[in-house]
Amino acid sequence: MENKFIIPHKGRINKADRQRLMGHKSVILWFTGLSGSGKSTLAHAVEEKLFSMGIHTYVLDGDNIRTGLNKDLGFSEEDRKENIRRIGEVAKLFVDAGLIVLTAFISPYRRDRDFVRNLVEEGEFIEVYVKCPLEVCEQRDVKGLYKKARQGIIKNFTGIDDPYEEPLSPEITVETDKESVEESVDKIISYLIKRGIIKDGN
Amino acid sequence: MENKFIIPHKGRINKADRQRLMGHKSVILWFTGLSGSGKSTLAHAVEEKLFSMGIHTYVLDGDNIRTGLNKDLGFSEEDRKENIRRIGEVAKLFVDAGLIVLTAFISPYRRDRDFVRNLVEEGEFIEVYVKCPLEVCEQRDVKGLYKKARQGIIKNFTGIDDPYEEPLSPEITVETDKESVEESVDKIISYLIKRGIIKDGN
Repeated sequence: MENKFIIPHKGRINKADRQRLMGHKSVILWFTGLSGSGKSTLAHAVEEKLFSMGIHTYVLDGDNIRTGLNKDLGFSEEDRKENIRRIGEVAKLFVDAGLIVLTAFISPYRRDRDFVRNLVEEGEFIEVYVKCPLEVCEQRDVKGLYKKARQGIIKNFTGIDDPYEEPLSPEITVETDKESVEESVDKIISYLIKRGIIKDGN
Repeated sequence: MENKFIIPHKGRINKADRQRLMGHKSVILWFTGLSGSGKSTLAHAVEEKLFSMGIHTYVLDGDNIRTGLNKDLGFSEEDRKENIRRIGEVAKLFVDAGLIVLTAFISPYRRDRDFVRNLVEEGEFIEVYVKCPLEVCEQRDVKGLYKKARQGIIKNFTGIDDPYEEPLSPEITVETDKESVEESVDKIISYLIKRGIIKDGN
C-alpha cells in the first residue's frame, strides 16, 4: 500500500482560495481611540451591517481577548505592547482565513499600531481613528474608569496619565461626538466598497 | 441629533448567527501525535476536502504559529504549556467565528490538551490521535529532527528524551502507518457528518 504521509502536501488551500469561497476580500479594520470613544460599539455595528450583507466577520475586543489569550497581561507599557502584538498576530491569522476582522482596542502607541500594519500585506490594515474629545469620553464614562483614573485608583490610564498618540494618516476617521453610529458605519462600509473589498450587492 | 455611542450595543452577532451564515457548525479538530506522524499533512488534506465541500476552515500549525504569535516561546515544559494555551485560545476564537479550525501540534501532555477541551463547549473539541509507532516516525524523519535528537543536538525531543502522553479517549484515531491519507481523511469527514457538524451534501 502506498503511503503518502511522508510526502509533503502540495497545493495547499491559501488565502486567495478562502477569500473566493467567502465571496469577499479579507482585511483588518483596526479601531483605535480613547476609552469611551465608541470603538467597540462601532465595531459591532459594522459587523452587524456586514453580516446582513452576507459577509463573514469577527470582532476582537476586550471581551474575548483580555479574558482569554491575553489574560496573563497587565497594563504596563511592556504588557500593552505585547497585548497589541498578539492581537495583531491573531488578526493576521483571521485575514489569512478570509474574514474581515474588526479590532477594538485603545492601542495608544503609534509604533504598536504600525507594527501590526507591517505584519500584513499592503492594503490589508485599515486604521479607523475613532475620534472623540477627551472631555466627551470622560463625560460618557460608561465603565466608570475615568472617575477611578481621576481619583488615582487606576494608574496609567490613557488620556489621563498616559498618552494617546493620534494616528497620523488613518485610512478612515469617524467623529463620534458629531456623527451618529449609522453615519459612522456608512462611512466605513462605503470605504470597503470603494476599495473593492466587498461588493455593493453583497 | 441623537447620539447612540453611549448606549451599549445589544443583540450582537453571535456564534450561532455566524454558523448559520457559514452553513455548518464550528469545531476544533485537534491533531496530536509524534513528530513525523503526519499531523500537518493530514490536517491540510482534511482542509482541502472540506474546502471542496464549501466548508470554511483554517489550519493552525507550526508554520503560522511558531513564526508569529508564539515566536517568543521555546520548547521548555513551561513554554510548551503556554504554546498550547495560546493555540487553544486562538482556536476558541475561530470556533466563535464559525469556522472549523484544525490544529497540528505534537501537544504531548494530556493536561494541556484537556485544558483546551475545557476552554470550549461540550462537543466542540474533537481530539484526533494521529497514531504512528516511534520507529516509523523516526525512519521517516522528514525534517531530520530525530537524527539531531539522537545526536543530542536537540534536547527535550518528544519520543526521545521527552514523553508523549497518548490520548486516553480521543474522538478519532487514525493510524498513519497502516492507512492511506485518503482513508484517514474519510474517517474524519464521516465523523463530522455523523455528528451533524457538516452535511453530507455540503
